[in-house]
Amino acid sequence: MALCGSDLVSIIPLSTRDIMGLIEDAEELRRALRVYGSLSLARGRIMATVFLEPSTRTKLSFTFAMKRLGGDVVDFDASRSSLLKGETDRDTLRIIDGYGPDIIVLRQSKPGFPMEIKDEIEAPIINAGDGWNEHPTQALLDAYTIWRRLGRLSDLRVGIMGDLRYGRTPSSLSYLLAKFPGNTIYYIAPPELSVRPEIREKVAGKAEIIETESLEDVIEELDILYVTRLQKERLPDPSIYERLKGIYRVDAALLRRHRHIPLIMHPLPRTWELDPSVDEFPQAIYFEQARNGLYMRMSIVKNILCL
Amino acid sequence: MALCGSDLVSIIPLSTRDIMGLIEDAEELRRALRVYGSLSLARGRIMATVFLEPSTRTKLSFTFAMKRLGGDVVDFDASRSSLLKGETDRDTLRIIDGYGPDIIVLRQSKPGFPMEIKDEIEAPIINAGDGWNEHPTQALLDAYTIWRRLGRLSDLRVGIMGDLRYGRTPSSLSYLLAKFPGNTIYYIAPPELSVRPEIREKVAGKAEIIETESLEDVIEELDILYVTRLQKERLPDPSIYERLKGIYRVDAALLRRHRHIPLIMHPLPRTWELDPSVDEFPQAIYFEQARNGLYMRMSIVKNILCL
Amino acid sequence: MALCGSDLVSIIPLSTRDIMGLIEDAEELRRALRVYGSLSLARGRIMATVFLEPSTRTKLSFTFAMKRLGGDVVDFDASRSSLLKGETDRDTLRIIDGYGPDIIVLRQSKPGFPMEIKDEIEAPIINAGDGWNEHPTQALLDAYTIWRRLGRLSDLRVGIMGDLRYGRTPSSLSYLLAKFPGNTIYYIAPPELSVRPEIREKVAGKAEIIETESLEDVIEELDILYVTRLQKERLPDPSIYERLKGIYRVDAALLRRHRHIPLIMHPLPRTWELDPSVDEFPQAIYFEQARNGLYMRMSIVKNILCL
Repeated sequence: MALCGSDLVSIIPLSTRDIMGLIEDAEELRRALRVYGSLSLARGRIMATVFLEPSTRTKLSFTFAMKRLGGDVVDFDASRSSLLKGETDRDTLRIIDGYGPDIIVLRQSKPGFPMEIKDEIEAPIINAGDGWNEHPTQALLDAYTIWRRLGRLSDLRVGIMGDLRYGRTPSSLSYLLAKFPGNTIYYIAPPELSVRPEIREKVAGKAEIIETESLEDVIEELDILYVTRLQKERLPDPSIYERLKGIYRVDAALLRRHRHIPLIMHPLPRTWELDPSVDEFPQAIYFEQARNGLYMRMSIVKNILCL
Repeated sequence: MALCGSDLVSIIPLSTRDIMGLIEDAEELRRALRVYGSLSLARGRIMATVFLEPSTRTKLSFTFAMKRLGGDVVDFDASRSSLLKGETDRDTLRIIDGYGPDIIVLRQSKPGFPMEIKDEIEAPIINAGDGWNEHPTQALLDAYTIWRRLGRLSDLRVGIMGDLRYGRTPSSLSYLLAKFPGNTIYYIAPPELSVRPEIREKVAGKAEIIETESLEDVIEELDILYVTRLQKERLPDPSIYERLKGIYRVDAALLRRHRHIPLIMHPLPRTWELDPSVDEFPQAIYFEQARNGLYMRMSIVKNILCL
Repeated sequence: MALCGSDLVSIIPLSTRDIMGLIEDAEELRRALRVYGSLSLARGRIMATVFLEPSTRTKLSFTFAMKRLGGDVVDFDASRSSLLKGETDRDTLRIIDGYGPDIIVLRQSKPGFPMEIKDEIEAPIINAGDGWNEHPTQALLDAYTIWRRLGRLSDLRVGIMGDLRYGRTPSSLSYLLAKFPGNTIYYIAPPELSVRPEIREKVAGKAEIIETESLEDVIEELDILYVTRLQKERLPDPSIYERLKGIYRVDAALLRRHRHIPLIMHPLPRTWELDPSVDEFPQAIYFEQARNGLYMRMSIVKNILCL
């Protein structure tokens, strides 16, 4: 798959060579920014950000990425939009596409929506999250972060903890890790939020899978612990949520109980599951991870725009 | 009327020559964009978008237009503004004007508001909708769309259907069509939403007017059917609305009952009045119409900024 | 204090020389804009606007300032942000800072917050209001406005009227005036909203302080009357508010009762406390004051970015 001119709706069609190419470009863009401050590669190009689910973190990251490349951004503000008047998301996207953006960054709540719509849309689409399904640019920036720290994307033991059933981050990251040899994924979650069967199927035979409810049982085996948020509204009973808060939570005390502390990642924003007391540990790399998102998204946009 | 440096608050003062000039520039800008991607005509110029009524479609179109001309846009976000603190719209506009925008695109709910305020404001104002009164840039992009398809703006039979009482699109389009010879306007609406007397008066003697409640009676006579949205809140009784939903609605089945199918236009967004089953007809030109808005608004901005 | 590369969180560390330097640059930028329309000093630089309290006036002013300098702006839209998901403001700022903005303009409701956070943040921070504490760029544009009109910042008699207890404008302006010799500040407020003790302490011995409940007793002595808004929600009893509405209010009739009318300033937006009938007086300079904010903020940004 060549990224030039194409959509990025899933991590699945990317080859390991595509991924390594994106990482190399991210490194190169990082160096260029350090020297030049901003670039002018994307001068005259316009990105449309279309976030049909509320979000600002990912949108902000893409906006900075596009502007640092020298391009401009037009945001479709869904909250004050004609959606209120009953327009379908398909109409919305066709109209925005008609205004001729060079690239569309799309978030929508329906799993598979970017795949459904992409052939009707002229501009390349970057999936910035389709419900619980995928979030490929997050997986790519996660991979970039791991590669920067450990120098490889293979032979890793990665624990993914939290909401594995409804989260889109665990799925995309799993698909990515399954492309490289020798990886083991530890899915750490309560039964109510255990990893979706379709993820397990796609990963099986490529990466080794270990499922557990207990972080402390496996933490010393991990190179990386990837923490994600549990969401109250997805649990059948509030009392379950309160009980889980005590368990699926990483803090300084927990880390100090172990001889080996893995690198700690988190897609952010965080709530109680990752305590600020962890910030001081050298293994805490989630703010670095967020920053890496800037360079990876610059790299993705540069490649899709064939710059 | 020369557009250079002036406001565009109504379609009425424009001559047919002004309109044809805007259409020619829209065509030229379309060609230029195809070759160059973006232009730099408006480099260093700033448009302020001030939408004091919620809307995003028109704002987005102007934003793309300005950015493709090479200029920049600053949006005044009314929803989170000091309006909440009780400031008047007049104060708001005077303050924004003080920041020195090169052009202001204004939407406000009070009919005639841009006319009232314009002499206190230094920047040229484009009326992007003043309540039910006018929406001149919509009429200009409608005209551009008709001209591209039929090669003329005269000797047309145009049906305008839907909410003719409170809609601002029917009025501006009517005033525009009345400037060209030989046009007939069919107003197709229930009595509760029939065309406003002031529109009828301004058009009388210039274009022929035919009023009807029945689309099917006249559809075969039309070159263009311009569909607009009915708005529930404007009808005295919800049961009337439900009855009208069955009548003021275009779908594939209705079109197939007729030997002649007119070009179908709609200002978008649409709801039930224009069924997606119509999208496949070659006569469905509303997405093209939305796209034409980009070029027409570039043309309008270019002319007002004297570029 | 050299502004180059530093934060601007309070007016207190600025010297009179810093302030006069900012005023001179504001004048110079005003002249340059008149000639060139826009500048390109800040090309490639990005400002992040982070308003964690709703506001648009100040944000808009900074946005125009940055764009007229040739730079770009990325807005963090707090209302639709992950704040809803429970993220702390500290995390939000660290993540945004990670995206590498060249400067951050921050509004937050907690007094002292910019001071607390600034050493964790790489980008220079401009405090655009921290609760009731300070609003240094407002004080600087106020000073610029006074200097333009009266040619000096010393030997002034300035009345500040309204909510002196919870307002951040009176404090920053007081601290600024106290830096210059010979100034007298008249605090005009009901006892419920009288000036905060910490302001009185910081000003004492530098500027003369006169406290009064009655505008009419002192108006003829003033060079400047600085009107601010009273806020209903801050008063213990709605009936007090209604009574004060009759008293802490400037209109044409009041001004005409006096032989000497001071220059009338207001940070805007205004409500009942400053009647539109005042707008026609030559002493009404609040719209000019708002416009001056553009040039002063350009000057501040230029200096902090070392341009």
